[in-house]
Amino acid sequence: MKKIKLAVIPGDGIGREVVPASLKVLDRIAGLHGGLKFEYEHFDYGCDYYLKHGDMMAEDGMERLGQSDSVFLGAVGDASKVPDHISLWGLLLKIRREFQLEINVRPAKVFGGIKSPLANPEDFDIMVVRENSEGEYSSVGGRMFQGDDEIAIQNNVFSKRATKQAMEHAFELAKSRSGHVTSATKSNGIFHSMPFWDEVFRETAAGHQRIETTSTHIDALAASFVTHPERYDVVVASNLFGDILTDVGAAIMGSIGIAPSANLNLNGKHPSMFEPVHGSAPDIVGKGIANPIGQLWTAKMLLDHHGEEEMGSLLLDTMESVTADGFLTPDVGGCHTMDEVVQQILSRLQK
Amino acid sequence: MKKIKLAVIPGDGIGREVVPASLKVLDRIAGLHGGLKFEYEHFDYGCDYYLKHGDMMAEDGMERLGQSDSVFLGAVGDASKVPDHISLWGLLLKIRREFQLEINVRPAKVFGGIKSPLANPEDFDIMVVRENSEGEYSSVGGRMFQGDDEIAIQNNVFSKRATKQAMEHAFELAKSRSGHVTSATKSNGIFHSMPFWDEVFRETAAGHQRIETTSTHIDALAASFVTHPERYDVVVASNLFGDILTDVGAAIMGSIGIAPSANLNLNGKHPSMFEPVHGSAPDIVGKGIANPIGQLWTAKMLLDHHGEEEMGSLLLDTMESVTADGFLTPDVGGCHTMDEVVQQILSRLQK
Ligand SMILES: CC(C)[C@H](C(=O)O)[C@@H](O)C(=O)O
Ligand SMILES: CC(C)[C@H](C(=O)O)[C@@H](O)C(=O)O
Repeated sequence: MKKIKLAVIPGDGIGREVVPASLKVLDRIAGLHGGLKFEYEHFDYGCDYYLKHGDMMAEDGMERLGQSDSVFLGAVGDASKVPDHISLWGLLLKIRREFQLEINVRPAKVFGGIKSPLANPEDFDIMVVRENSEGEYSSVGGRMFQGDDEIAIQNNVFSKRATKQAMEHAFELAKSRSGHVTSATKSNGIFHSMPFWDEVFRETAAGHQRIETTSTHIDALAASFVTHPERYDVVVASNLFGDILTDVGAAIMGSIGIAPSANLNLNGKHPSMFEPVHGSAPDIVGKGIANPIGQLWTAKMLLDHHGEEEMGSLLLDTMESVTADGFLTPDVGGCHTMDEVVQQILSRLQK
Repeated sequence: MKKIKLAVIPGDGIGREVVPASLKVLDRIAGLHGGLKFEYEHFDYGCDYYLKHGDMMAEDGMERLGQSDSVFLGAVGDASKVPDHISLWGLLLKIRREFQLEINVRPAKVFGGIKSPLANPEDFDIMVVRENSEGEYSSVGGRMFQGDDEIAIQNNVFSKRATKQAMEHAFELAKSRSGHVTSATKSNGIFHSMPFWDEVFRETAAGHQRIETTSTHIDALAASFVTHPERYDVVVASNLFGDILTDVGAAIMGSIGIAPSANLNLNGKHPSMFEPVHGSAPDIVGKGIANPIGQLWTAKMLLDHHGEEEMGSLLLDTMESVTADGFLTPDVGGCHTMDEVVQQILSRLQK
């Protein structure tokens, strides 16, 4: 029996709704598989934990999470309780950093039954590889002077190592897809980091002659996700550019509620982390209408990551059959509850 | 007779096509007005100038441009001739910096006859106020170490003065519109500059009690321009965020070929500069199919800026009547040439 030990952090808001629902589905998948079992350790880290303990996680939190095979996360953040930069740097970004989850992979594709806000979207299928550990997300910098003279300086830090690693990952991925990598740049406006980014991209491309490449400025690229998403295969982007592009990617799919992501540790020293792109959505908490697809598609990426691609595909196909049959939550134009959608998925995942 | 002295820089690529066409329209407008005259001084600055002279503009270029009332610019950049960061920091960004064009105002609205790529866009009318002088576009920073160890550091510099100024401009603008300002932030991920940005926004908002405000993270905001553009009135954004949002704004309008912008000098010491959002579009140069609307809408902003709002509205209405009647270039789904579109506009601008 293959056991996968998951550290489960529902986190805040709808994370606490979609995560338990997804565990039911993972258990059903394991049952179908026969030789697979998930073991869960639950962690109540999040904004409520902060209000009680003054910290987003326990002192030995990272150590305990580190004993899992993967972390399965819902959503972090609730600005009505804790300022975002505290909750996120204390939990989500802390895990990304300390577990060296240096790559964030996020797909955006036409999803069965879910209507895109685009008028005539051609069939698109994009995979964004986001550098996930440095760049624009940096704690280096600070503030100086007071009052009207105050300035804030934010240092973006780009290393050759992490930049190259994200790009290599993108090129490897492109080999098993349509063979094209687009680099999100802004070397026309951003003076030091982006010309550097371009150089590393050219160097990486030189090692993968059979992959076609394009470099596009982030402004034009974000716009082009709206006008011509079918032009893209793999897109490699810095931390911030990847953040923006994947939200636009989620938007053209029809809802941020369905977009998944995998935060990958590549050196084998720590677990990887799987979380949907959406946030904690305080406005719909408790209404039972959260879209479970984002968290479940995330579970599919987790299955793939642990070598269970067959189960991963089964889960994705089942979800698409359910949404295509009109079992949709309100965010994607339906009138079904989360439970109804999940129930449909469970019942189609019978032997 | 009121004279407006324009420094005209067609620049590169299609800039050299749409600028001369727009001057014809400006002259026609002046003729209709009766009491208005444009005086042009032409400058051949751009990538070809660089190839000849080793610089993007003459040594006394800034001084000569500075003698105009406004600069009317086409497009800068042609990576096949000069690397972008050289051409842009040597001309476009140089003018923005040295003339202290600290605000960049860019509208995005449903434009008569031009089809949005969105399926069912509600009537949207957004005005993005972009901080145009600092932030992520900074020459502070550099590179260190060699080979695999190399790092690039890019310093984003945010001053209270310029941040507040952009926000004040946004709030003033909102007073004559629907009374709502959205701040584009990323204080959940970007550690120093964006919490600072939020503080200045709260402080500015406190001085404008009657204006409603929202703060939205740039990733969610870019996505929301696609899913709910009708929710926005005035949006204030940092240099980079404004750059990205206005390209997405152009995309949802139907083409980057129609989006205009005004780079405003607020201290009265230098001319302001008017340029479309699109670039030099090397791929369509010489084909006669460049969309003139972006440059012409820019001319409308120039007219407004010089107190000729009536003429500005006439020009905008005339353009919309022409596009609504189907006189469209290929980028917006038509089969007309630039000349045909301009000819229609000219002939409707008769007394
Ligand atoms: C060409 C480039 C430097 C410029 C910018 O990023 O400001 C352009 O994208 C714009 O929006 O005017
Ligand atoms: C919550 C926030 C810090 C985070 C990010 O910016 O990385 C989120 O937007 C994401 O994309 O996972």
